[in-house]
Amino acid sequence: MIFRQFFDADSSTYTYLLASGPGREALIIDPVKEQASQYLAAIHDLDLKLVKAIDTHTHADHITALGDLRNATGCVTLMGEFTKAECVSMQVRDGERLDVDGIRLQALYTPGHTDESFSFVLHPGQPQAVFSGDVLLIRSSGRTDFQGGDPHRSWDSIVNRLFKLPDDTTLYPAHDYKGWMSSSIGEEKRHNPRLAGKTEAEYVAFMRSLQLPNPKMMDIAVPANLACGRP
Amino acid sequence: MIFRQFFDADSSTYTYLLASGPGREALIIDPVKEQASQYLAAIHDLDLKLVKAIDTHTHADHITALGDLRNATGCVTLMGEFTKAECVSMQVRDGERLDVDGIRLQALYTPGHTDESFSFVLHPGQPQAVFSGDVLLIRSSGRTDFQGGDPHRSWDSIVNRLFKLPDDTTLYPAHDYKGWMSSSIGEEKRHNPRLAGKTEAEYVAFMRSLQLPNPKMMDIAVPANLACGRP
Repeated sequence: MIFRQFFDADSSTYTYLLASGPGREALIIDPVKEQASQYLAAIHDLDLKLVKAIDTHTHADHITALGDLRNATGCVTLMGEFTKAECVSMQVRDGERLDVDGIRLQALYTPGHTDESFSFVLHPGQPQAVFSGDVLLIRSSGRTDFQGGDPHRSWDSIVNRLFKLPDDTTLYPAHDYKGWMSSSIGEEKRHNPRLAGKTEAEYVAFMRSLQLPNPKMMDIAVPANLACGRP
Repeated sequence: MIFRQFFDADSSTYTYLLASGPGREALIIDPVKEQASQYLAAIHDLDLKLVKAIDTHTHADHITALGDLRNATGCVTLMGEFTKAECVSMQVRDGERLDVDGIRLQALYTPGHTDESFSFVLHPGQPQAVFSGDVLLIRSSGRTDFQGGDPHRSWDSIVNRLFKLPDDTTLYPAHDYKGWMSSSIGEEKRHNPRLAGKTEAEYVAFMRSLQLPNPKMMDIAVPANLACGRP
């Protein structure tokens, strides 16, 4: 399997390129507009054909590359079924499976950071990894104070959905701000300071206490991303 | 096997933490002083015991965490045999093997970026990966204009040593400046613009034409690193 993680330093965003099989078909998760040329270079050099570009949710801190990648490659753009981004050409439901040339992903509805956030489980049944977007981060979790975010739903998505995956499932989030590139479900159960040993009430109170400023890109990024990054 | 890649955003440095086996012994490659607390947190959370801390070479753009990690964990500090850092407690020769609790690394002398740079091959014989320090970077190569750097030796190390590894060997360099986290030997043979289809003379002329400013940290980092980061 071909697996590549990319980092956008401006927004601390991780993007994932996956491919497998003789057809050289690839998919990409959470691509950043400013890095589109990097992804296209990797796709070229690895002799891949991009067939799906996925956003886990409507990002508020960077502009998606979905539209640019669709223009460049003809790929299908994809989000979860509750997205307000009418530009995407495919929406998936909770539990739905995506098969791309030997790569199988299962969509998992994980609201809380936003009300339309999905995670994607790689090779469900014997999961190898989960791409969690912003709902579960390494030793952290995504803020719950805008775009339909809700700390109760965040707790439920993490504890009752993501933490039901096997402990050795690798966690690949959409962001990290301290230089960590991956974790595992078991590690976050044991060591995520917002969750380990905490009750739902404690988690909700903590999330409500955060008082974070809006992301500096929010007023630009959200409307742009509802148009797949093509304002 | 436990494998973790970390990123120091200030110097765009990659650091690698590896462990395997029942003894929970771990090694780390090219750790950055400012990130030492991050590595120690990961080592704690993963229930590991750090036994070796390795620098591929004397870095000029950041201060090593070798001394801090030795102080914190009692680990052995290690560099190649031509280092001028007298503080390190172990030096390895070209071809020498290191065994850490199921992790096997082979030291590979790859001068060119500096005259004392080593790479480390993971699981020689059936190599899975190579940690190349700064001599070979993703679609690039390390500058050759200070600390005994030499573009002829860089070419020789890359073409006659690293490129002799199997094409599917994953390349993990000490830096990337464009958000790529790994590559492969085959990919660099085919697509590294400084090397693919080039002659040694063309490579040497290109490296000599670069006219790069000194790294801003150089006057601090090199003397500090000769003392394992403890000036």
